[in-house]
Amino acid sequence: MENFDFYNPTRIIFGKNTHLEIGNLLKPHAKKVLLHYGGQSVKKSGVFDQVVASLRNAGVDFVELDGVVPNPRVTLVREGIQLCKENKVDLILAVGGGSVIDSAKAISMGIFYEGDVWDIYAKHLPVSKNIPVATILTIPAAGSESSPSSVISNDEVKLKKGYTNNITRPLLSVINPELFFSLPKNQIANGVSDMMSHIFERYFTRTLHTDLTDALCEATLRTIMRNALILMNDPANYDAWCEVGFSGNVAHNDMLGLGRAQDWACHGMEHELSALYDVAHGAGLAVLTPAWMKYVYKENMNMFVQFAVNVMGVNASFRDPEYIVTEGIRLLSEFYRKLGLPQTLGELFIGNDQLELMAKKATGEISGNEHKLGGMKRLGWQDVLAIYKMAL
Amino acid sequence: MENFDFYNPTRIIFGKNTHLEIGNLLKPHAKKVLLHYGGQSVKKSGVFDQVVASLRNAGVDFVELDGVVPNPRVTLVREGIQLCKENKVDLILAVGGGSVIDSAKAISMGIFYEGDVWDIYAKHLPVSKNIPVATILTIPAAGSESSPSSVISNDEVKLKKGYTNNITRPLLSVINPELFFSLPKNQIANGVSDMMSHIFERYFTRTLHTDLTDALCEATLRTIMRNALILMNDPANYDAWCEVGFSGNVAHNDMLGLGRAQDWACHGMEHELSALYDVAHGAGLAVLTPAWMKYVYKENMNMFVQFAVNVMGVNASFRDPEYIVTEGIRLLSEFYRKLGLPQTLGELFIGNDQLELMAKKATGEISGNEHKLGGMKRLGWQDVLAIYKMAL
Repeated sequence: MENFDFYNPTRIIFGKNTHLEIGNLLKPHAKKVLLHYGGQSVKKSGVFDQVVASLRNAGVDFVELDGVVPNPRVTLVREGIQLCKENKVDLILAVGGGSVIDSAKAISMGIFYEGDVWDIYAKHLPVSKNIPVATILTIPAAGSESSPSSVISNDEVKLKKGYTNNITRPLLSVINPELFFSLPKNQIANGVSDMMSHIFERYFTRTLHTDLTDALCEATLRTIMRNALILMNDPANYDAWCEVGFSGNVAHNDMLGLGRAQDWACHGMEHELSALYDVAHGAGLAVLTPAWMKYVYKENMNMFVQFAVNVMGVNASFRDPEYIVTEGIRLLSEFYRKLGLPQTLGELFIGNDQLELMAKKATGEISGNEHKLGGMKRLGWQDVLAIYKMAL
Repeated sequence: MENFDFYNPTRIIFGKNTHLEIGNLLKPHAKKVLLHYGGQSVKKSGVFDQVVASLRNAGVDFVELDGVVPNPRVTLVREGIQLCKENKVDLILAVGGGSVIDSAKAISMGIFYEGDVWDIYAKHLPVSKNIPVATILTIPAAGSESSPSSVISNDEVKLKKGYTNNITRPLLSVINPELFFSLPKNQIANGVSDMMSHIFERYFTRTLHTDLTDALCEATLRTIMRNALILMNDPANYDAWCEVGFSGNVAHNDMLGLGRAQDWACHGMEHELSALYDVAHGAGLAVLTPAWMKYVYKENMNMFVQFAVNVMGVNASFRDPEYIVTEGIRLLSEFYRKLGLPQTLGELFIGNDQLELMAKKATGEISGNEHKLGGMKRLGWQDVLAIYKMAL
């Protein structure tokens, strides 16, 4: 196990009706709140009105900013920063999924930063001051509700950049699985794929002696898969949503990645798909992950045998490790298919023409900031291109 | 799953040499520290001198209070409160195991409480102000290094009382598994028994639909057992200590108990043994837990079958659930035996004579504060007496 330093102070308020308490939860922390959200879905579901009523009943003043889109844009972040400054906002309440929360995190840092907020993401600047972010989660997927990370897209330069800083872990997050009942099946599937990938990126490692986190990763992956299949047939199943919602949080608060080298190649490769084609992150990951596995598994057969047996349920007594691994990857693809997720880049309307460009962007060849992706196998742009081609 | 509200802001600094950084870790938080510890063991090991050097190098001033014993006494806590007040101490650094940390937590609350600190424990008073506690863990067992709980003993009234309050979660805890190398085998065994019990108390539940926390509990229990056996033969095995040390922390930060009714009958019954006979907590738990299991398993066969199969590795395909459960309990006892832990109250020099008194104390019959113990089966004093007798 490697040394680690872990700090996750986000308070999680989980369960039925919990979002109705948001006013009382925020009152000790805020005089004026920015209520940040996406579009019509929180209004249609009634959540918006319930949140507004709870804030008013508690006497918490607020201003609104809607319009967050998937792969949230820096342009709206800039607008939010301006609005917060003008209104002396001292806390941002994100009501939505990962995109809304990520947008809120970017705004929270931009308020105190003199220059353009995009610089924080583009140059990974060390920021030490922000205002607190609270969240009401309406889509479990990104894990941003207690992670220290956020991802912002910039259309001008066609880039999507992640940024990690413990100061952006939310103050508190409300997770009420009832709010997930109305999610369409493709969004459930994308979310499940995203949270599973957050675990895969931590699970596949070259670090030895990681018994506890190995087992916690496997436990969480099995829980997600079992309950995701229940939701495909019964999307208003509260118990299954509890498991998936809670697992999605655990998947990305970094508990599961402590003391081990992490990978993150699939996320790096997928960011290019989202930046160039605006595909859903979870859909892109479902296409790339099995291709990545096939490309790298020979580098660490033991790890992939363990995955196949402990996560995918392949019988460990087969004599041929190669068969066990291949069968594990096949079962993962089959699971994605059951969720209606795409299997190929073609299904995402992505052809051969931009693959080399994306591979070179993913590895910094274009920007002159060359780096390899991943930890299980260090991937140069030719490796990334090969994986994209396997996923065609 | 039940609703929950979880907040664990303790920063964990884990790994080799981490305790050498304690001065720099505390400097931003403290002007004057109470250095609180037990006795000679931290001096013999050299840890005391390293901590003092680190504090001095960082320019952190401190006063000392040693003399904490297992089942820490309120008398020393009172002394610590006086010392902190006189010296304007603003942070307590506990260097030791659960007893030292618990003593530090009690002192941290007593500083601002006008009356006798014992009242906080005896009457479960709602305390809202304390000074921060930091810890350097030298014995992994109690999980107090990030738990909100502490247990204090009072010799005058022969009582041992627990108290839980999120404000007593430490500010930060340093866990360096190298510091565990010199622990004697009986202390390793007691610690392992204690941390396993922290999980059992959460795991055995009547709450349904708890897939994730079930699996996380099972994963952590298996990790502890596998690595504890390694330590019995090789007590300076760093990798095994990493797993046991990390697991002991996870076992009691309450992550594993979220959204489920918890039990705590074995802890309640064991506290009476420690209070009256001053036995090691882990040893008492190793005696009582299998007896408790035999007494209650028929109340929830499914839960105990799951335990036997997923934790103890009993073959699930046996047709007789009764056999599966009994075999699981037998294997747990066998595991305790391999660790050299006692199997009976007799081995702890506890006879028949005080059992009824302890059973009545455990259930508040004596103090006029009658209550039943446990959640899996609600235990009155006659049930507790029956379990004590089964453990004779």
